[in-house]
Amino acid sequence: MHWKIGLIGFGNVGKAFIKLYSQYSAVWKEKYNLDASFHFILNSKGAVCNKKGLDIHSIIEATSLSNLSNWEEGAKFNDVFNPDLINLLIEVSPTNIKNGEPALSYIKNALENKISVVTGNKGPLLFRYKELISLAQKNNLLLGIGCAAGAAFPSINFGLFDLAGCEIFKIEGILNGVCNYILTKMYESNISFDEALQQTIAMGIAETDPSYDIDGLDTAVKIIIITNALMNSQITLNDINIQGIRNIDNDIINNAKKDGNKIKLIGYAIKNKNKIDAGVRLIQINRSHPFWNIDGTKKAVLYSTELAGDFLITGGASSPEGAAFSLWRDIINYKPLILKLCNE
Amino acid sequence: MHWKIGLIGFGNVGKAFIKLYSQYSAVWKEKYNLDASFHFILNSKGAVCNKKGLDIHSIIEATSLSNLSNWEEGAKFNDVFNPDLINLLIEVSPTNIKNGEPALSYIKNALENKISVVTGNKGPLLFRYKELISLAQKNNLLLGIGCAAGAAFPSINFGLFDLAGCEIFKIEGILNGVCNYILTKMYESNISFDEALQQTIAMGIAETDPSYDIDGLDTAVKIIIITNALMNSQITLNDINIQGIRNIDNDIINNAKKDGNKIKLIGYAIKNKNKIDAGVRLIQINRSHPFWNIDGTKKAVLYSTELAGDFLITGGASSPEGAAFSLWRDIINYKPLILKLCNE
Repeated sequence: MHWKIGLIGFGNVGKAFIKLYSQYSAVWKEKYNLDASFHFILNSKGAVCNKKGLDIHSIIEATSLSNLSNWEEGAKFNDVFNPDLINLLIEVSPTNIKNGEPALSYIKNALENKISVVTGNKGPLLFRYKELISLAQKNNLLLGIGCAAGAAFPSINFGLFDLAGCEIFKIEGILNGVCNYILTKMYESNISFDEALQQTIAMGIAETDPSYDIDGLDTAVKIIIITNALMNSQITLNDINIQGIRNIDNDIINNAKKDGNKIKLIGYAIKNKNKIDAGVRLIQINRSHPFWNIDGTKKAVLYSTELAGDFLITGGASSPEGAAFSLWRDIINYKPLILKLCNE
Repeated sequence: MHWKIGLIGFGNVGKAFIKLYSQYSAVWKEKYNLDASFHFILNSKGAVCNKKGLDIHSIIEATSLSNLSNWEEGAKFNDVFNPDLINLLIEVSPTNIKNGEPALSYIKNALENKISVVTGNKGPLLFRYKELISLAQKNNLLLGIGCAAGAAFPSINFGLFDLAGCEIFKIEGILNGVCNYILTKMYESNISFDEALQQTIAMGIAETDPSYDIDGLDTAVKIIIITNALMNSQITLNDINIQGIRNIDNDIINNAKKDGNKIKLIGYAIKNKNKIDAGVRLIQINRSHPFWNIDGTKKAVLYSTELAGDFLITGGASSPEGAAFSLWRDIINYKPLILKLCNE
């Protein structure tokens, strides 16, 4: 399968995405019969574009797109959603969780033009996943979203492929490394919330304004995306209750500890018939809970199914390379819904 | 995709395989565009066969194949490996780890006749996996083997789909529930090896002759199958050292416990360039090891990759339904190597 790729966004993940292809193309060709070429790269200032394919080595070496010879400032975006130019759009522009734009329009535009999409952008998925996946399936296209809910950590991928055939009735996840790190350090080292938070900022894993993490919003966005992908639902931020960890103090942690418990922040979704109860909440767990050892910056998801039992997964690199890998994973795993054997 | 299925083996897993289809066919049709019909079922005494498709409801209700109207005692096996009759063989006859026969011949015969195969049979994979997978890929066929190395527990599936694009350089697994249960009970309750073993026999998870489990052979067979599937190798039982747990006594467990450690039996494989070091061994682990909470009859695998980091998975029902689910999972996940989009 030959993928003719257009890329929107040229930050660390976009760059790593191209670099990974230059490193692994020979292996992936042999193992998965995968070919790819790059035909445009857009960012907020303009684009490079080439119908015959861009030279990826000069792109990898460029610190900025505008250093490249075929750079066109202020290039118009709409010209490039052309199925003669590309058959796969990689959308990794910055996330907007207010309304998903402009990425939402890019993705919709691509799918309507019979172009597959793989994205790490949470915004469009938060608002219109159901509409987008219906459009993709109607046109027998790939809509890969694994990167948006854990990157290398395969939260959605596991549900799609390892639980293929199952109905998942419960999903619970430790989905935010900053919150889990803070709760772990308060438990293990008895340091204050503020001290633990400062450590996460010093480590570069929390933002300078960390409210997106510690107020539970990041966990909320991820559990919504995972739930809508795996439970065929269309819940939004308005449908769920969200707890954060801002008001957790050492007394709360130490009282739990005296009872043999830890406190964890989880995103959860429970499906009962076609009703979904989802949210973000603090739970107390004891030594026998599957999340007992999920400490520090680790993430984990616990899936419950009637057919095949319960499953726990944890791990995966938190890095631009890890995120870029997850985009390629979606591409490699793509299987059209309408599948005919075309043996030659 | 319409699968025309032939089934060899009519034990608990074979029966559950058919029953699952009767329960989930409508859901799978909608979700995966999957259709199936059953055209023969063989066991050691004969077969039922119907070119137009067998009535699965009467099969589900039958306690024995020989009660069915189209039962033919002593039916010849070779007549049914016919690509006009079936395009998928499910091989779940009893395992023979001496030489893999007769299942090895069935599977080879099917693949040579352009018939895909999904199997839970360890024997053929232990001896000839590389040859069989090459044959399948050459003919653009499915060879699904997930059931053979953990059933619902997705040891191979995770490597194929969640680590798609990665090179795995280390695999470590707690792969045998009987051994893990015995080691756990000796640690937790200080009971003797024999007492713990008797519990596993009473629970029905160990054989009356439990040497296949406690001498490490089951773990060995599983790590070989997983390794050959995920590391592109062809190791056999002759290539690896195997430790069991028969000589573990309470002194050994308690000395480890005094040091803050548990003892676990693991299968492992480490890839260094193209050399594989694999085996089954006892290890001491401390509280920070990912396997620390993998107790009782639980199984787990830890995968190490350079590209995407380390991953741990655990869980999955140990039952005929769990095994049957894993056969369907392979079918649902099938993606031909030569993939063309055949939009209609």
